[in-house]
Amino acid sequence: MLRRTLPSYTRPSLLCRHMSVVAKSLKYTQHGEPQDVLQLVEDKLADPKNKQVLVKILAAPINPADINTIQGKYPVKPKFPAIAGNEFVGEVVCVGDQVKSLQPGTHVVPLASGLGTWTTHGVFNEEHLLGISNKVGLAEAATITVNPCTAYRMLKDFVKLSPGDTIIQNGANSGVGQAVHQLCRAWGIKSVGIVRNRPEIAELKKMLQSLGATAVLTEEEMRTSDIFKSGKLKRPQLALNCVGGKSATEVSRHLNDRGVMVTYGGMSREPVTVATGPLIFKDIAFRGFWMTRWAKENFNAAERKQMFQELCQLIEQGKFVAPTHEMVPLSKFKDAAAAALNFKGFTGKKFILDMSC
Amino acid sequence: MLRRTLPSYTRPSLLCRHMSVVAKSLKYTQHGEPQDVLQLVEDKLADPKNKQVLVKILAAPINPADINTIQGKYPVKPKFPAIAGNEFVGEVVCVGDQVKSLQPGTHVVPLASGLGTWTTHGVFNEEHLLGISNKVGLAEAATITVNPCTAYRMLKDFVKLSPGDTIIQNGANSGVGQAVHQLCRAWGIKSVGIVRNRPEIAELKKMLQSLGATAVLTEEEMRTSDIFKSGKLKRPQLALNCVGGKSATEVSRHLNDRGVMVTYGGMSREPVTVATGPLIFKDIAFRGFWMTRWAKENFNAAERKQMFQELCQLIEQGKFVAPTHEMVPLSKFKDAAAAALNFKGFTGKKFILDMSC
Repeated sequence: MLRRTLPSYTRPSLLCRHMSVVAKSLKYTQHGEPQDVLQLVEDKLADPKNKQVLVKILAAPINPADINTIQGKYPVKPKFPAIAGNEFVGEVVCVGDQVKSLQPGTHVVPLASGLGTWTTHGVFNEEHLLGISNKVGLAEAATITVNPCTAYRMLKDFVKLSPGDTIIQNGANSGVGQAVHQLCRAWGIKSVGIVRNRPEIAELKKMLQSLGATAVLTEEEMRTSDIFKSGKLKRPQLALNCVGGKSATEVSRHLNDRGVMVTYGGMSREPVTVATGPLIFKDIAFRGFWMTRWAKENFNAAERKQMFQELCQLIEQGKFVAPTHEMVPLSKFKDAAAAALNFKGFTGKKFILDMSC
Repeated sequence: MLRRTLPSYTRPSLLCRHMSVVAKSLKYTQHGEPQDVLQLVEDKLADPKNKQVLVKILAAPINPADINTIQGKYPVKPKFPAIAGNEFVGEVVCVGDQVKSLQPGTHVVPLASGLGTWTTHGVFNEEHLLGISNKVGLAEAATITVNPCTAYRMLKDFVKLSPGDTIIQNGANSGVGQAVHQLCRAWGIKSVGIVRNRPEIAELKKMLQSLGATAVLTEEEMRTSDIFKSGKLKRPQLALNCVGGKSATEVSRHLNDRGVMVTYGGMSREPVTVATGPLIFKDIAFRGFWMTRWAKENFNAAERKQMFQELCQLIEQGKFVAPTHEMVPLSKFKDAAAAALNFKGFTGKKFILDMSC
């Protein structure tokens, strides 16, 4: 190995020598329900070499896409055996001799998906890791690369929004939904959130308003609301949809001339129905967004660095928090995976695997 | 009047003096079925003054939007009493004293909609008229401003198409559909047309292929065709939809990654159904197009002049013909309006009112 031929005075503190780390990982060798196919497996990790980095995972969330990938329902297919999970925050333990940007102790988050993050330790390539301030909370860091980035890009890349403009979204209590309300608050944009009715609706509304939602309405309330007609809020130029079906149709109905609906999820498993009239006469557009694709296509883009900087800054200033979540120990992953699903899809709550226990 | 104060040597040949023209017009004073509400009315026209132009209408088509406007189902509402019709080709009879670009004998087409064109004569503003070569056939000129322009803009403004690329469209035998195939042929773009099955399907296919369609398939044939899978044609980057419902879903299914479906009509009266997966993972976009809006927003744009020039050139070179049509005398307008509709919407054939009879 190249590392062994280097003189010992070359950045010695950064190099690993025979760490003999044993990683406990949630692996699967076939698609199926997470609680059926995931196995907690121990593997001895080789020392990181060249541009590799040994990372101790601190926390890794369970996202809908992680579950769908395990089930085989996601367009990204892993090579078996595969370690589940895509997001994490970890701490650099030691680095290969060609690593320049990271050093032991630095907190890192992934810049690529499919790294396999439901594990206690991982060896990753330097280019797939982004060092972030240790002042960013673990829950925020562990969940920064998917939901907040999705929210950020959807608010930035489809229509030009200015302070005072309005956006509308369904699934407002989703991970992305919570991020959207917070980013809108930070940028002076009014945000209207639509949620399904439920027994604890008053608490949910209060919670989303505390994150910055200008108004939160149930689907039924929205149907009869005059919030836009009355001029209380400008008609939205942007609608965000993670539900589909009737909910998407209802939300798109409120769009202003030339408005855009961006679909990033389909929790109802029903398609989006688009009336011909608004398409032609109001010039409404229906688009989609997939963070994984954006990240691949903008791997080293300046916009990506700028986005992470801005998000971290908001988190450090206390203006952006992680979505409602529960930390669960790795040993309880089966319960967490099962709880993350219900018969209708995903519940609002996020589970984050706490690797420190 | 300003005209009367001008010295008599000022462009005398262009001026009108007491023409006493009586126009026969199809007028309506309330919405309803064309055969019920249209009345053939005679009006004496005042001489054109200032920037006005007296035009003898030569031919004016019956378009779906004209019928919908009369029925009150179109977003553009006329002021009553209104003369029906939007397109025409006419010949300038005489002009007001401030008219600069037109002279008697010039053929003109409208640059604005809602002028009221189902009439033998009209007085229009110079800025609402475009002079075109008398070499452009009457049927082509009478139908140039809506269908060919719609086809032209949809092929130009949504995705960048290069020679060898493919587009797909349903309603391929519609006025726009026939224009699309001809423009694609002129520009080296492969075009796949989808039509409903019918007894005279063989003749229809032959006709569309003679206009330049690369392939014409019925909806059933398209469902099992491997025309794209086999690599015989590139997957289309652009789909044009004037039908909606299942037909639109089927057509959008063939779009390439990042493809765009543009809806410009909804003959099935069913909405467009958009699956969540292709929106997110293939980044398919669903847009709409309305020529009336484009024309208003680009009234004096260079692209508009360029478009008319290019279309007229293709017509003069015999590379672009009017859609399948029948010329009917103004006196037979009730039969024509009734024939233009059937219980399911519009038939493929276009009727053009011939004002010379």
